[in-house]
Amino acid sequence: MSTREGAGRIAPFPKRLADAVAEKGGPVVVGLDPRPEWFPPDVLAEGRRACEDPREAVAWAVATFSRAVIDAVRDVAAAVKPQVAFFERYGWPGMRALEETIAYAKRQGLLVIVDGKRNDIGSTAAAYAQAYFGAAETSTPGRDDGPWTARIPSGLEADALTVNPYLGTDGVEPFLDACRRRGKGIFVLVRTSNPSGAELQRLALAGGGTAATVAEQVADLVVRWNEGMPTHDGYGPVGAVVGATVPEEARALRRRMPGVVFLVPGYGAQGAGAAEARAAFDERGRGALVNSAREILYAWRRERPDAPGTLDDFAAAARRAALRMRDELAAALGRGRG
Amino acid sequence: MSTREGAGRIAPFPKRLADAVAEKGGPVVVGLDPRPEWFPPDVLAEGRRACEDPREAVAWAVATFSRAVIDAVRDVAAAVKPQVAFFERYGWPGMRALEETIAYAKRQGLLVIVDGKRNDIGSTAAAYAQAYFGAAETSTPGRDDGPWTARIPSGLEADALTVNPYLGTDGVEPFLDACRRRGKGIFVLVRTSNPSGAELQRLALAGGGTAATVAEQVADLVVRWNEGMPTHDGYGPVGAVVGATVPEEARALRRRMPGVVFLVPGYGAQGAGAAEARAAFDERGRGALVNSAREILYAWRRERPDAPGTLDDFAAAARRAALRMRDELAAALGRGRG
Repeated sequence: MSTREGAGRIAPFPKRLADAVAEKGGPVVVGLDPRPEWFPPDVLAEGRRACEDPREAVAWAVATFSRAVIDAVRDVAAAVKPQVAFFERYGWPGMRALEETIAYAKRQGLLVIVDGKRNDIGSTAAAYAQAYFGAAETSTPGRDDGPWTARIPSGLEADALTVNPYLGTDGVEPFLDACRRRGKGIFVLVRTSNPSGAELQRLALAGGGTAATVAEQVADLVVRWNEGMPTHDGYGPVGAVVGATVPEEARALRRRMPGVVFLVPGYGAQGAGAAEARAAFDERGRGALVNSAREILYAWRRERPDAPGTLDDFAAAARRAALRMRDELAAALGRGRG
Repeated sequence: MSTREGAGRIAPFPKRLADAVAEKGGPVVVGLDPRPEWFPPDVLAEGRRACEDPREAVAWAVATFSRAVIDAVRDVAAAVKPQVAFFERYGWPGMRALEETIAYAKRQGLLVIVDGKRNDIGSTAAAYAQAYFGAAETSTPGRDDGPWTARIPSGLEADALTVNPYLGTDGVEPFLDACRRRGKGIFVLVRTSNPSGAELQRLALAGGGTAATVAEQVADLVVRWNEGMPTHDGYGPVGAVVGATVPEEARALRRRMPGVVFLVPGYGAQGAGAAEARAAFDERGRGALVNSAREILYAWRRERPDAPGTLDDFAAAARRAALRMRDELAAALGRGRG
């Protein structure tokens, strides 16, 4: 640990991540994709009793369901990954539920990776950095109001954020600044697990560069963005999203991006298992996080397709599924390497 | 106009857009990038008096400032383009201010293009479509709750949304569905106006395809996504974001994407004028919208750098700047072509 981390300074994101993985016994990330259409009926009914307005009722149910999942997995998961779209679709009450969910997860000792895939240029990217990384200075000229508007917290401050790279370096810089100075992390979309991911990401490049595809070029940018950042155990705060459904590409990208933590979606529901996810880790079994959302959150529905289930049933099934995922990953990675 | 538009069905987005451009006398879009650090002091002071909580106070000021700009430009602008980041950075009170701003702009007869650059895969993209295009069905299997959670409005329903293409077709499909069936429009990031935009967008492609760059490949996808959509005057609801700072590329992309409306940012503050923006239009002077944000919103600060100004001063200066922009564009496009 470098001296920069001492004396009240927050540790770099890769250090906090490594600590969480060691403490929880594995690199499990639970994706918080609250889909009310799959909730147990009791939490929806209670939401309707608690709030007259249907939008606030469903947002209440979203927050309550998310809290129950967090309670169920807090000693198993290294992090949770709330997917903003599933909160944003209920407007500001949904965003208030996201705020409550982020705050609750942090209080329960979980790292929070917000899955927002945000992207924009310059000062607009700085506004997203303010939203998810706290009251960063926005480095825009001409500000004259003093501190009060520039330092207002969004309420959405998380540990890390997923970021889309299509706009290039100046759209990422405000997030890098928070990685450098505030212990934050980002995960840049490199190679996604969806069927159409290849349409742009696998395009073959011409010219004399070493990158053969768009995804490889993004990988090289990610490596560059990680340079000079605070590190832990060889890893920096700028990570990459690399789907588990493309293990042969994941292996090549793993070699291409030393020091870059991979966030691997697609575990479980999207068809990839522990053996596929293994490709994202280094030879020591480190350097990656694996996300599962619906296979954990709605495990009860697979266990008992015939029974509606209660919130407690869902939470207990989620815990069983998270423990199973942790065990599967430990077996694939070599037990004890955490 | 096809028969599909009759009998209570909403007209296709390109038809509504053409009507707005004709009515307002030009393709001016006013970008709503509310930066409290540049607001007149009176609106911030009033916000502080109206709300005890500083975050709600600044969100109040954001909504009030946005409303004043909308009032000032409603008969000059075809559309407003709220930039979500500048609302999201104040968390849920900021998103409530966005909801108020969208609703107010619609009531004042303005089309609303939400600049969110949203992107995700499959059912998550569907959740974003629900957020900004209303209560679309989420086409996910296993839903069993009946209509109430699936049909709750987000409060953020707009006419169009900017979308990032990095995830390919399946991340865009839920938005296309709303274009097809609900009269919505999208603007896909093709070639952005920021200095680093070229890093990925200008990468040269190998292989036998006709697209020479990533941006051209995205352009070809946009053309494909527009196929079979309801059209008006040759234009469909799937548009493209093409920066005015790269006019020679804009001209080539204009030829490459017939029937695709261009949304051109970068007018004014980002260094491009009417002559550069001209490249985005077809030979009739149609097929593009031009956005300006800070040059309009904060015009007072340029007019009178020595005077703090009131909200009324800012609104009057914004109106003058919008009228000037409309005149400049009309001159560049050939007056009367709208």
